[in-house]
Amino acid sequence: MNIAMIEAAAGRLAGVVRRTPILTSPFLDEIAGRRVLVKAECLQHTGSFKFRGGWSALSALSPETRAQGVIAFSSGNHAQGVALAARRHGAPCVILMPSDAPRIKIENTRGLGAEVVLYDRATGDRDAIGAALAESRGLTLVKPFDDPQVIAGQGTVGLEIAEQTREEGIDAAEVLVPCGGGGLASGIATALAARAPGLRVRPVEPEGFDDVRRSLLAGRIERNPRTTGSLCDAIITPAPGVITFPIMAALCGPGLAVSDAEALRAVAAAFHRLRLVAEPGGAVALAAALLRPKEIEGDAVVVVISGGNVEPGTFCRALDPGTPG
Amino acid sequence: MNIAMIEAAAGRLAGVVRRTPILTSPFLDEIAGRRVLVKAECLQHTGSFKFRGGWSALSALSPETRAQGVIAFSSGNHAQGVALAARRHGAPCVILMPSDAPRIKIENTRGLGAEVVLYDRATGDRDAIGAALAESRGLTLVKPFDDPQVIAGQGTVGLEIAEQTREEGIDAAEVLVPCGGGGLASGIATALAARAPGLRVRPVEPEGFDDVRRSLLAGRIERNPRTTGSLCDAIITPAPGVITFPIMAALCGPGLAVSDAEALRAVAAAFHRLRLVAEPGGAVALAAALLRPKEIEGDAVVVVISGGNVEPGTFCRALDPGTPG
Repeated sequence: MNIAMIEAAAGRLAGVVRRTPILTSPFLDEIAGRRVLVKAECLQHTGSFKFRGGWSALSALSPETRAQGVIAFSSGNHAQGVALAARRHGAPCVILMPSDAPRIKIENTRGLGAEVVLYDRATGDRDAIGAALAESRGLTLVKPFDDPQVIAGQGTVGLEIAEQTREEGIDAAEVLVPCGGGGLASGIATALAARAPGLRVRPVEPEGFDDVRRSLLAGRIERNPRTTGSLCDAIITPAPGVITFPIMAALCGPGLAVSDAEALRAVAAAFHRLRLVAEPGGAVALAAALLRPKEIEGDAVVVVISGGNVEPGTFCRALDPGTPG
Repeated sequence: MNIAMIEAAAGRLAGVVRRTPILTSPFLDEIAGRRVLVKAECLQHTGSFKFRGGWSALSALSPETRAQGVIAFSSGNHAQGVALAARRHGAPCVILMPSDAPRIKIENTRGLGAEVVLYDRATGDRDAIGAALAESRGLTLVKPFDDPQVIAGQGTVGLEIAEQTREEGIDAAEVLVPCGGGGLASGIATALAARAPGLRVRPVEPEGFDDVRRSLLAGRIERNPRTTGSLCDAIITPAPGVITFPIMAALCGPGLAVSDAEALRAVAAAFHRLRLVAEPGGAVALAAALLRPKEIEGDAVVVVISGGNVEPGTFCRALDPGTPG
């Protein structure tokens, strides 16, 4: 994983992936006590940064391999990112989802042209089912984060942040990044180390699911005791990746963690002050910037909102002033 | 009003006003039966296009006049646009609002540094109070739409649409624009006539408040019978302006009107498919594109979402699948 791979991915993504804007609000600056620059990656195609990694991975395959098709295991943002990337490449795409995945996510993934294969979470072995499908059809697995071309695609967010902060006259800041397996954080960190070395990534996770924060402290991969039970479901993974973790250990500052209630407050702030739809997991970095200002350094902070695929019920709970937090 | 004034306004706005993105979704294309390009002006500073007109008007004043201060009559988007433009110019700003305006709007306007003066809608004469304030303090009135520099500022949206559609390979399309007094529609129409003559503006209004549509049909200014009772309050005005109407009559296609229920469905579509917060009045053009496809021509349609300042209760009503419409 290096800057040349990210630059190469940026070349393949040009004209396909959206260069998402940096947004600001004087109200957010006041709450945070410093300038807050929000990289609105929820405005990316399919509503999250995952389309970048999906496109990067598919575009790096040989035409022959790609024509055989791809497969991904996901009920969320990665599924949609890979599905759209495959459709635009004209490549077959199978998405393996648990049969209890929300109907809307199944429909959206089908709506993007993918074949959705459902398995029973209680009795089925996802990896075995996926391997059998891949084998029988010659499909290539697109991993959600622990893959160099996926990380390179997510790293293009970092290239854009380097350019956009320079345009704003900022050459030193912390960059808060929502973090699951670490594909986005490690990609951005690699890009910034080369293109804007005064900017340092800090991964942000949900409290209780802070495997990356603990892994960075321990200097070795630590796992989450569980992977369910957070509103921030989009960024819950068992553990950092074997490729992403060493990159984060080398390049990132200490991790941060916020509560579900804080994530919901950030969802509301994005609604009121930026007119953006953020999902709770996508809003954890904004939550840290607004509600944990003493844990952050500098006159300005960059925040990535990584996704905006959220159920209306959850969203409206965030907007309800009666919600605790 | 001419293209030179809009180009001059664009020069004054450069580096201050956001160049808002054009967003798309394959799901919206499918519903509309044609390509839908959404100009996301709800991402403008203060959450609506009004900041453009406010900045244009203030920046066109002499430094001496501007230093005396400005005044605007508004409880909504125009107030916030003028307030922020004044604050960034370091100019005093008085906003005259009815005392029954929502507290959040009063607080937001104060939060942008304006002095809010309240008057009793039942007993006070807004124009007389405003004139007395302007006279005694030497304030300049910034009108919401019927002012050449305000129209020129809104017209910069049209310059951006001309550039952005060209980048997308589109040289002929209808451009649906939410319309109150006509400042945005007439400004965009003037810009497009000069810079992208294959693009034609069609104003979109709420049903029952379609003064512009009726005026265009009649060839003379028609008034709304009432100016309250719509969810699309941001774009309700008594009648088109004496400056804006002749421009629209010369350059725009027929007006369109949508119901409140249709506007709410467009708010929901912007949430689900674009991850944007649109207010009902700001979403009427998207509503027309999605729900009135037979009233529109061409393989592609451009839609302006003009604002995103909406109460959570209204927004969540739009997201509730039980809402009729």
